[in-house]
Amino acid sequence: MSRINKRIKVKNELARQIMGEILGTFVLLLFGCAAAAQVKTSRETKGQFLSVNLAFSIGVMCAMYLCRAVSGAHINPAVSLSFCVLGDLAWIKLLPYSLAQILGAYLASGLVYLIYHDAIMEFSGGVLTVFGPNETASIFATYPTDVVSVQTSFLDQVVGTAMLMLCILPLNDKRNAPAPEALLPPIVATVVLGISMSMSANCGAAINPARDLGPRLFTFTAGWGKEVFTSYDYFFWIPLVAPMVGGVLGSIIYLVFIQWHLPEPEDEPESGEFKEQTKVMEQNNKKDELYHKISSL
Amino acid sequence: MSRINKRIKVKNELARQIMGEILGTFVLLLFGCAAAAQVKTSRETKGQFLSVNLAFSIGVMCAMYLCRAVSGAHINPAVSLSFCVLGDLAWIKLLPYSLAQILGAYLASGLVYLIYHDAIMEFSGGVLTVFGPNETASIFATYPTDVVSVQTSFLDQVVGTAMLMLCILPLNDKRNAPAPEALLPPIVATVVLGISMSMSANCGAAINPARDLGPRLFTFTAGWGKEVFTSYDYFFWIPLVAPMVGGVLGSIIYLVFIQWHLPEPEDEPESGEFKEQTKVMEQNNKKDELYHKISSL
Amino acid sequence: MSRINKRIKVKNELARQIMGEILGTFVLLLFGCAAAAQVKTSRETKGQFLSVNLAFSIGVMCAMYLCRAVSGAHINPAVSLSFCVLGDLAWIKLLPYSLAQILGAYLASGLVYLIYHDAIMEFSGGVLTVFGPNETASIFATYPTDVVSVQTSFLDQVVGTAMLMLCILPLNDKRNAPAPEALLPPIVATVVLGISMSMSANCGAAINPARDLGPRLFTFTAGWGKEVFTSYDYFFWIPLVAPMVGGVLGSIIYLVFIQWHLPEPEDEPESGEFKEQTKVMEQNNKKDELYHKISSL
Amino acid sequence: MSRINKRIKVKNELARQIMGEILGTFVLLLFGCAAAAQVKTSRETKGQFLSVNLAFSIGVMCAMYLCRAVSGAHINPAVSLSFCVLGDLAWIKLLPYSLAQILGAYLASGLVYLIYHDAIMEFSGGVLTVFGPNETASIFATYPTDVVSVQTSFLDQVVGTAMLMLCILPLNDKRNAPAPEALLPPIVATVVLGISMSMSANCGAAINPARDLGPRLFTFTAGWGKEVFTSYDYFFWIPLVAPMVGGVLGSIIYLVFIQWHLPEPEDEPESGEFKEQTKVMEQNNKKDELYHKISSL
Repeated sequence: MSRINKRIKVKNELARQIMGEILGTFVLLLFGCAAAAQVKTSRETKGQFLSVNLAFSIGVMCAMYLCRAVSGAHINPAVSLSFCVLGDLAWIKLLPYSLAQILGAYLASGLVYLIYHDAIMEFSGGVLTVFGPNETASIFATYPTDVVSVQTSFLDQVVGTAMLMLCILPLNDKRNAPAPEALLPPIVATVVLGISMSMSANCGAAINPARDLGPRLFTFTAGWGKEVFTSYDYFFWIPLVAPMVGGVLGSIIYLVFIQWHLPEPEDEPESGEFKEQTKVMEQNNKKDELYHKISSL
Repeated sequence: MSRINKRIKVKNELARQIMGEILGTFVLLLFGCAAAAQVKTSRETKGQFLSVNLAFSIGVMCAMYLCRAVSGAHINPAVSLSFCVLGDLAWIKLLPYSLAQILGAYLASGLVYLIYHDAIMEFSGGVLTVFGPNETASIFATYPTDVVSVQTSFLDQVVGTAMLMLCILPLNDKRNAPAPEALLPPIVATVVLGISMSMSANCGAAINPARDLGPRLFTFTAGWGKEVFTSYDYFFWIPLVAPMVGGVLGSIIYLVFIQWHLPEPEDEPESGEFKEQTKVMEQNNKKDELYHKISSL
Repeated sequence: MSRINKRIKVKNELARQIMGEILGTFVLLLFGCAAAAQVKTSRETKGQFLSVNLAFSIGVMCAMYLCRAVSGAHINPAVSLSFCVLGDLAWIKLLPYSLAQILGAYLASGLVYLIYHDAIMEFSGGVLTVFGPNETASIFATYPTDVVSVQTSFLDQVVGTAMLMLCILPLNDKRNAPAPEALLPPIVATVVLGISMSMSANCGAAINPARDLGPRLFTFTAGWGKEVFTSYDYFFWIPLVAPMVGGVLGSIIYLVFIQWHLPEPEDEPESGEFKEQTKVMEQNNKKDELYHKISSL
Repeated sequence: MSRINKRIKVKNELARQIMGEILGTFVLLLFGCAAAAQVKTSRETKGQFLSVNLAFSIGVMCAMYLCRAVSGAHINPAVSLSFCVLGDLAWIKLLPYSLAQILGAYLASGLVYLIYHDAIMEFSGGVLTVFGPNETASIFATYPTDVVSVQTSFLDQVVGTAMLMLCILPLNDKRNAPAPEALLPPIVATVVLGISMSMSANCGAAINPARDLGPRLFTFTAGWGKEVFTSYDYFFWIPLVAPMVGGVLGSIIYLVFIQWHLPEPEDEPESGEFKEQTKVMEQNNKKDELYHKISSL
């Protein structure tokens, strides 16, 4: 068993990471898009706008617990890009990570379509459209409202993704006052919930190019037609580009306004428990030296 | 007192575990079905669809804190089967566990019926039916929508339960980046909330044969008639069989795509705190040897 | 300063505990009743049924963090009685605790009335009544629905409070798999949320004699008249008596079905971390002996 | 890099703290006001009253993780004043902190206006007003209902802010039974959620002069006119003054009724884990002495 295991084990780190990102983004989108399908096709009798926000948020939590030990659980090209800029991810991995995330999102959209096929057919009367009261494209990708301009949409996505990075980076920054590492997934999920409750009115708070492009590609291949790309004046490029800008911007704001001014790890006492243990270790080290002296007598 | 205690104490491990599973599933269903009764009989004035999702989720949390030290708190035959496949539960215990879970669910349904007897009678006009605007069968067991096909229902339950296992297994996997053990119950509960908000539109997200069969048997014996089994083209078998398939499938996906590729506990440094302690212990062990040398001088 | 402090410090333990229970129950009811007033007087535009459930739940959390180091934060005579039965509270303290809780609830009701005086007057047209579409008595105390019988109400309150004790006792039971002690308040709050979402349709889920009698006494003295006691066939006695029965019953069920069968603390290995530390300590103890031998050479 | 970093690093502690408070309050208001804009301009189709409460709550969490290591994350002049009274903040810092908080709130309001500019224009018909069905001023600052008197508004804000301090102070009080330090942000956020669900019906639960004045100043400068200050009989002074009174009052109630009577840190055994570690350390200290004896032989 153990030997078979070793043979099967994917030894290439990048291959493992790609597998992790595919599965993680798959889980995120399965929760999120299925909730959107549930609310839409049940005509809000089995959930409301808030349910979709909550389901995406829980999807973030589940995806993070699933694959953060494997790939860091970026599940978002804008996050991967930010980590490249911050030096936490090799630039060479940015493209594979992003493609894996898009693939995971595409596959999840397909499965959501299978699960909700009957309901989508009933709701839409069999016509898969981007517009009108029976549109079902918004179950998958994001679309703006009629009143929002291109500039505002772009700004909206920049700010939303900047908030994501600005609020997530301190959670795991040892120099700041971080959250418990084992509880990062629900706390990051809560940040995402906050963004989707406050910045999704204009254009759906994608704040994640993979979360948007994967499902959009799926709807394109599954019968919604080229309108998924052309509608709203070719809106689709905004959730691809703006989050990349916003993610980096948010990361830089965190660095410039907060992190650079925090005490460096060594020039300040560490927090309680760790300190105790460090002391114990240091004392033990001293004793070790004494032992050696004694034992070398 | 202590001696009486020892006499009463159930020494047979399986008997204790059965007792734990009965009580755990009882608590899960009491919260869940009572919330369904509250929302239904109050005509959504005292809660909404989300309340029922939340109550089942909190039921999971309470059941887990109650009996996980006793029986592992499976409270779901699909989970028990998955743990058999994973080697964490003896196959011989699968049937007793499942029967205990069904019994717990049956008893909880009975108590919910007693508590909400007056309200159910008023709501239904005294006629306990599976169909129509005054149906009350869906307070207890799950039923599909009119538009969903058998194949889709089956897939829906497979996917829902696969997501359950896929998202729960990493939470307690030391080789992954697990959640704090003492906080597993609320985090597992959140996973269940996510599933019931995103995959309950088609056929109610049983994802648990006991959660469905127990209450269905109760309604059968309490006056809803044989329609609870025959309705929707004998739908009742789907939440019995599909979750078993889905649970195993989700577990295998976790193994194949994530766990097999995680570093083995010994060939990689462990996470912070534990590492410190291990080091302290190792150093102490070395010292012990020195002591022995010294003391044997 | 420190000396003044010592003079002011209430040295009598019971007096301190009474103060803690007054303030804790005050906080619980201030959150809960204010939320009820907000939802009622805003005609559900500033919150819904769920808000009241959530506010009572958050009130439990806040009250527990506030006074559990002082008095154990029972904030509920049914909980105090259960702890008397379990041997965790001296019987002599039951009456003072209960009276303190009722007083805290009374005072909070008064403050809620002051804060929402204008809104209550506007909503009720200046007539404070127990019945009708403009009734405001239910902001404070609980009242049953028209259809629920005395027996069902009694059972409802027994079951609700039994669930409370059954689900809370394992959270802090070292022999079980308890929750982190520092996070007990939000987890207990979640249990209370579950009960109020699933068992409040019949008669409002008081599950706490003080939470019900305090506000009822306030409405009696503040102008709602004696109907607060006489209405619904003298319903008021049910949330006083039934929770006491239910609390004890739930505690006994926990003891008989779970706790008695759990391994005793010493006859089973403790959980991970603690074990490590214990080992370190034991090793150190052994070393200490060796030291003494060596140093006494 | 490291040398550049050191040059850029703001060495003045107060300057760093001001930067932290600006950014923290900015994050709080961006979440909160954007959610208010989303709910208002979508006419409650993309969120409800509860969403705004939740978004402000998540804003508190994010702001605290972001800047509490820098500035303590007061993000509220009433909190800063309370900490001055409690001796945890130098009085000289009260004004800079407060101004920083107001500035952060002002900037966030401006950004929310930019993001929701198109939607606000569409909703209001291009006329920015404080009154009427198309008013948009309440997206930013708080306004009372028509029925509430000045005295009640003042009391409402005093009580709301007093509850804030009363419920937050025990969370971090080592002499009480505090919450885990790394989880203070979500728990404080939950307290704020409770207050905004139960005490926001009268006048919007500002409980924070900066949260109110910053956005009010923004609306004043951005075209809503002087009515933002003059409306409701110059209501604007109430959320400035009353929270300052309430914060101090709540702090004093906590001191007088709870903290003064808690055991002093040294005259009571510490909680489990810490105690173990302390013991280990003490034993090691003893050993150290022995070592010195031995090594000095």
